[in-house]
Amino acid sequence: MSRKKFIEDKLKTLGAEVGDIIQIIKNKDASEGVLMPHHEFSDEDTITIKLKNGYNIGIAIDQNTEIKLIKKHKETTKEAKTIPHDSKKPTVSIIGTGGTIACYVDYRTGAVHPATNAQELAFSVPEIFDICNVKAHVAFQMFSENLEVSHWKILAKEVAKELNGGSHGVVIPHGTDTLGYTAAALSFILKNLSGPVVLVGAQRSSDRPSSDAAQNLIAAVTVAAKSDIGEVVVVMHGETSDTYTTIHRGTKVRKFHTSRRDAFKTVNEVPLGKIENGKIKVDGKYRKKSSGKVIVDDKMEEDVGIVYSYPGLKPEDIPNKKGIVFVGTGLGHAPEKVFPRIKQLIKDGTAIVMTSQCIFGRINMRVYSAGRDLIKAGVISGEDMLPETAFVKLMWALAHEKNRDEIEKLMTTNIAGEISERTRSDAFL
Amino acid sequence: MSRKKFIEDKLKTLGAEVGDIIQIIKNKDASEGVLMPHHEFSDEDTITIKLKNGYNIGIAIDQNTEIKLIKKHKETTKEAKTIPHDSKKPTVSIIGTGGTIACYVDYRTGAVHPATNAQELAFSVPEIFDICNVKAHVAFQMFSENLEVSHWKILAKEVAKELNGGSHGVVIPHGTDTLGYTAAALSFILKNLSGPVVLVGAQRSSDRPSSDAAQNLIAAVTVAAKSDIGEVVVVMHGETSDTYTTIHRGTKVRKFHTSRRDAFKTVNEVPLGKIENGKIKVDGKYRKKSSGKVIVDDKMEEDVGIVYSYPGLKPEDIPNKKGIVFVGTGLGHAPEKVFPRIKQLIKDGTAIVMTSQCIFGRINMRVYSAGRDLIKAGVISGEDMLPETAFVKLMWALAHEKNRDEIEKLMTTNIAGEISERTRSDAFL
Repeated sequence: MSRKKFIEDKLKTLGAEVGDIIQIIKNKDASEGVLMPHHEFSDEDTITIKLKNGYNIGIAIDQNTEIKLIKKHKETTKEAKTIPHDSKKPTVSIIGTGGTIACYVDYRTGAVHPATNAQELAFSVPEIFDICNVKAHVAFQMFSENLEVSHWKILAKEVAKELNGGSHGVVIPHGTDTLGYTAAALSFILKNLSGPVVLVGAQRSSDRPSSDAAQNLIAAVTVAAKSDIGEVVVVMHGETSDTYTTIHRGTKVRKFHTSRRDAFKTVNEVPLGKIENGKIKVDGKYRKKSSGKVIVDDKMEEDVGIVYSYPGLKPEDIPNKKGIVFVGTGLGHAPEKVFPRIKQLIKDGTAIVMTSQCIFGRINMRVYSAGRDLIKAGVISGEDMLPETAFVKLMWALAHEKNRDEIEKLMTTNIAGEISERTRSDAFL
Repeated sequence: MSRKKFIEDKLKTLGAEVGDIIQIIKNKDASEGVLMPHHEFSDEDTITIKLKNGYNIGIAIDQNTEIKLIKKHKETTKEAKTIPHDSKKPTVSIIGTGGTIACYVDYRTGAVHPATNAQELAFSVPEIFDICNVKAHVAFQMFSENLEVSHWKILAKEVAKELNGGSHGVVIPHGTDTLGYTAAALSFILKNLSGPVVLVGAQRSSDRPSSDAAQNLIAAVTVAAKSDIGEVVVVMHGETSDTYTTIHRGTKVRKFHTSRRDAFKTVNEVPLGKIENGKIKVDGKYRKKSSGKVIVDDKMEEDVGIVYSYPGLKPEDIPNKKGIVFVGTGLGHAPEKVFPRIKQLIKDGTAIVMTSQCIFGRINMRVYSAGRDLIKAGVISGEDMLPETAFVKLMWALAHEKNRDEIEKLMTTNIAGEISERTRSDAFL
């Protein structure tokens, strides 16, 4: 009999279901908590329970482990929960978009659901009601790898509406896959921010023992409610343990790990700050919130692509588009075999921006003669921008300027913190 | 008058030329050394001299700085330098390929030259003669962004010839831009290595005060002469100061910074070891050198490309090729709009391998339903491989197997240390 079957049978015999309070006694240690649904990431022989302090723990079950049913889960009454209101607290708008962070566990059925309405979204982490008044709604429910320019525009309009409607800040729970792209896009589209716009995600859903969903959302709400930041920022787990959460600038952050909770890192800058024990500590320079109305400037040219360089890259591997972010090697190089193609594309009106596979550091095409040839051909320096940020910015720049020199000027001028004036020696791995 | 002109005039008046020994007295401090050529990275008002201990220092010159000519540079006699030989020392073969590390300063003319013959290459850092006998030759002189499969094949054959000819190890000075790609390629092409194969580069050429060329080359030669490693490794500066040099596995390393000397980092593993004070310290597990002959297995399918995913990626952005390494988001995702294209390509015989923009962590397409659809379509997991390594390995795998399932088996089986059995929690930024 498999371990999984063994556990299932044992729970069945006890009449214990997901949501009930059980006690597990192993090696004379007793742990009590709410029985959580089995997650595909958990080991087969493990039962996960949510302790009274809110932590989830996984306990490996063997023949000698004793399990007791303490209390059956009570059906919650059918009356709809209402979000509490306290006129002394600031109001934060939460705009749901989907992703792991928006998933919550229905203890009655054990299923993991995306929050499809405002109540579910807000009540997924009820601790936020202690911090602020919550105005929640769901904009869309998507895996973030499917988001496109049209979604950024919807979000930008909703953010402006919320801030212009009196909210102190906005929190956007978002899938982590393209969270960096959306943060960069909103940074260029939204002008004159009258409050913090905080994107937040989770690497592990709330049914997993090590979920970062609650900590990240609480920290994001704290920044939106209590800081005077007038920028788009990303708030995510700071390190492997639960000590703090980091505030990243939206144009300078990327996801650097497929599964770790501290996957997001600021590149070529130090992070803006952190949230530790409920307190915000800001280190970096940031734009303070403005007093006027938020403006949405969402013209974007969608015919832009990213081309990654590699040994053997052929001219025909660079497509015809209005804009191309080339992810070159080193200081901003490309194989000489594609130079004629690059020259022709630029001649025909394509804007080509050079960034680097190194990710860290700054483009400098003046060091070697081949780089100088690229400058002569009209390739625009991506400075110390992330390729992802340069991609989003190029969409925005092409919709705002038609002339090549004006596009270059826009691309090489700092607009939303995407270009650092000088390279910091302490901003590396 | 510009600072540069001021310094040039001052040196001219003294009759001091590059290569001469001069003394600079500033704020009562006197520094003596060989006058180095002006480098475009140096500040305009700076003179660089090479001190007796080998270090280069830059000194800002102002009106109150005194400069004295101590000794004119003697023309070296025309007789060719001969590389010393000591039968008690191991022999290391150095195969030049170009790049910043191969550049040396001709003190007579002041020009920075690539080493185009064996003597120049070996004598660029004469300290290596204390470590071993040196057998040097130049394979080709290229900026590394222009290297292709054909160059990897030339190098592999030359490495095998040197090791099979009795050399203890081989050192390959190489441009840093695609050093990681070449290291990965040689890792798959070379079998049964009877000695260490060490790729080494420099981020700053030897005419710059902060050059890493000498330290890196000395460390690389040390590993080639004294270690029992039977793998392709990369040896580069370990951190910002000059304390140590790191040994990276060839399939697990990438360049992470456009200009820093410690730009190379091992991904999803800890580095194999370090060289500190001339001593090799190995931490990681490595393959020991074999006793037989080195085999060159250099069949490579060149019709392979890298496609980087981004919001708005269109089906036509994925080209027709025999092999594609898809650099997806998160755990290995792609926009659903390109799923039909991916399915069609695989049906038509294209091998598609999934890797992640996160760079760190492992692909897991089983977590979300969209990922499971990709598995069902036949997308191959890149496991925890670097996109660059997966690209090189796919070239190699496609030339060795024709059947899809066999290709998948090759791609997901560890061959040259490119796939780690489990993800280490200490192998992150």
